[in-house]
Amino acid sequence: MLVVQKYGGTSVRDVERIKNVAKRAIEYKGRGMDVIIVVSAMSGETDRLLNLAHEAAKFPDEREVDVLISTGEQVTSALLAITLREMGHKAVSLLADQIRIISDSSYGTARIASIEEEKIRGALKEGNIIVVPGFQGVDRDGNITTLGRGGSDTTAVALAAALRADLCEIYTDVDGVYTTDPNICDKARRLDKISYDEMLEMASLGAKVLQIRSVELAQKYNVPIMVKSSLMEGKGTLVCKEEMIVMEKVVISGVTYNKNEVKITINRVPDKPGIASRIFSSLSDANIVVDMIVQNVSHDNYNDITFTVVKADAKKAFKITEEIGKEISAKVAMDEDIAKVSIVGIGMRSHAGIASKMFTILAGEGINIELISTSEIKISCVIESKYGELAVRALHKHFGLDAEDVREES
Amino acid sequence: MLVVQKYGGTSVRDVERIKNVAKRAIEYKGRGMDVIIVVSAMSGETDRLLNLAHEAAKFPDEREVDVLISTGEQVTSALLAITLREMGHKAVSLLADQIRIISDSSYGTARIASIEEEKIRGALKEGNIIVVPGFQGVDRDGNITTLGRGGSDTTAVALAAALRADLCEIYTDVDGVYTTDPNICDKARRLDKISYDEMLEMASLGAKVLQIRSVELAQKYNVPIMVKSSLMEGKGTLVCKEEMIVMEKVVISGVTYNKNEVKITINRVPDKPGIASRIFSSLSDANIVVDMIVQNVSHDNYNDITFTVVKADAKKAFKITEEIGKEISAKVAMDEDIAKVSIVGIGMRSHAGIASKMFTILAGEGINIELISTSEIKISCVIESKYGELAVRALHKHFGLDAEDVREES
Repeated sequence: MLVVQKYGGTSVRDVERIKNVAKRAIEYKGRGMDVIIVVSAMSGETDRLLNLAHEAAKFPDEREVDVLISTGEQVTSALLAITLREMGHKAVSLLADQIRIISDSSYGTARIASIEEEKIRGALKEGNIIVVPGFQGVDRDGNITTLGRGGSDTTAVALAAALRADLCEIYTDVDGVYTTDPNICDKARRLDKISYDEMLEMASLGAKVLQIRSVELAQKYNVPIMVKSSLMEGKGTLVCKEEMIVMEKVVISGVTYNKNEVKITINRVPDKPGIASRIFSSLSDANIVVDMIVQNVSHDNYNDITFTVVKADAKKAFKITEEIGKEISAKVAMDEDIAKVSIVGIGMRSHAGIASKMFTILAGEGINIELISTSEIKISCVIESKYGELAVRALHKHFGLDAEDVREES
Repeated sequence: MLVVQKYGGTSVRDVERIKNVAKRAIEYKGRGMDVIIVVSAMSGETDRLLNLAHEAAKFPDEREVDVLISTGEQVTSALLAITLREMGHKAVSLLADQIRIISDSSYGTARIASIEEEKIRGALKEGNIIVVPGFQGVDRDGNITTLGRGGSDTTAVALAAALRADLCEIYTDVDGVYTTDPNICDKARRLDKISYDEMLEMASLGAKVLQIRSVELAQKYNVPIMVKSSLMEGKGTLVCKEEMIVMEKVVISGVTYNKNEVKITINRVPDKPGIASRIFSSLSDANIVVDMIVQNVSHDNYNDITFTVVKADAKKAFKITEEIGKEISAKVAMDEDIAKVSIVGIGMRSHAGIASKMFTILAGEGINIELISTSEIKISCVIESKYGELAVRALHKHFGLDAEDVREES
């Protein structure tokens, strides 16, 4: 049996915690499993390095930033291998270029293309626990690349996929995936299982447990991911394919919310082909990622187009949109005072009336809905910011997610 | 024209200093030179990493220590490349494995075997300033190695040799090689030139300006090394072959001293073959490096053998020697209260009477000589520790090295 374990920055933030990681790995090994450990940089280290880069340059060269920040994971890898050997176990660190974690050349957001199995298999056969720095790769010319924030999750899943591991465990500072943010709703509950699709919706909606790309990869290669706490014992949450989830009565798995977006509306856009395309091409050219886009049926040959972007892009997006607005004599307005509340669940597919139930719950709290957007397993509503937490608690309760309402699977 | 520049830890200790390094490189480039920069870790970084390793293990695995500490130079390399690009100049960092700085597999003390020229030449042709992390290599299996403390000097000289550079500049926190330690003798004087042989004697005697191996390598490939201060303008000291040094009237280039050794004496060793060999084989097996060894002609078929070792090895060396002493009924004594004072100079070869002049000077100060050892261009005397500084000043003065006595070469 082969297990890939990944530890985030807080789980390896000092040598004491690294010793705990080593102990667990040796324990697994003692139970007859082969173990590969993927580590993040010690918490704070990546930011320390990035601050140095920004001290040196306003827009530091991306290739060199990857050379810089990839050292964080390398340090943790070496320290963990040293610790494992000190504890009397064979161990070896293998860096991205040593096991040919080949990626494309998109510095800072590279994608893994392939991993060489041979060297890892050889080191496992010699009885080693293998330590791999997460987050990094090399391109075909041997340049160091990094996979973006949270990239260590993706390294772990990619290794699990390449080596056909039985399980990929992601150890983090929370003990699993929750029905909603426990800081907002004290009745939030850890899920025993969640499907890849649900996890993708949860992740993109702001539940920062796993890097989205790692979930996509896990789904593609059918790698089961167990999300667990490195700090306490517990069951964790299994992210797996839908068929493995015994349907509970509950149709909704989680409620998420996001206060980090703004809403931009262009009023009275002439209903002609090509205008929406122009707006969103311009935004895309400026590297602005648009989240929700809503356009209603036209009245009098005019439309209102509304979209949301993250706050960091708000000013730039508003400026671009306003310029296009001027040309077509349309007024542009921005609203920064919004929250997006979403419900996610594969149960939605087979249950009618979920959307109307959501709207009714919100109405019951006197909350006005400004925008609605739906996918197959998700419904999102934009509401006034101040109602965000109230909406989360109300939805969590009325969709039967509150802790006392549900008995956990055993 | 191609120049290799190397900057030590204090010269790159923060982004401000790294900017100075970048400015100088761009200035050289502006004068039509190709530039390769070798950097050390930011000062304190290697120790910080080693402390982490020692927190994790009493005897941290050597392979993994190299994986760990090699990150220090990688960080500086990336920051310097970022800074150069921010200043509008093409630059690229090239790590040891990227330019195949192949070494043997002696982790922590690896020796460079070869460097691939092609990739560096290509990057130079594209107009880049090239930044290479010092101190590191990769073995033939792709494992990271390091070259020992001061190894960045060796990286610089090896690059200069491989690329047949016109000059190798070593920037450090002193402005050159001095006739003696300025902290002991305020009349110490910077040398304009010094031969490789003299530099080797000076370095091994405690003048910590250059790693010994880098000087050996420079001599082998005839690479001229300019030692300069990165913090102030100045001429520095050129380390070069003897023939390039215009003979000055002075026969002595420097006076060095070392208080870090102890003297161990075995009295009344039977004058039979094999006993000295047994003593020094045992010491060598215990990894103890012996510095001076003195044995006089025998009296009554008995010898006294005296040798010196560094203080860190004193106890171990004494114990080993005492055990052998017991077997042959010889008494062993240790003296920790010693200083070694040496004079170095290629002029000695052609001048008689230097040794006797040295002894006379010491006698004139009432200093008793306990041990004497000579090489072709060096004479060392062991004296009582408290006279160390006095001896240095007296030798410096009477051999005509004091600053006011000598006019510098122009």
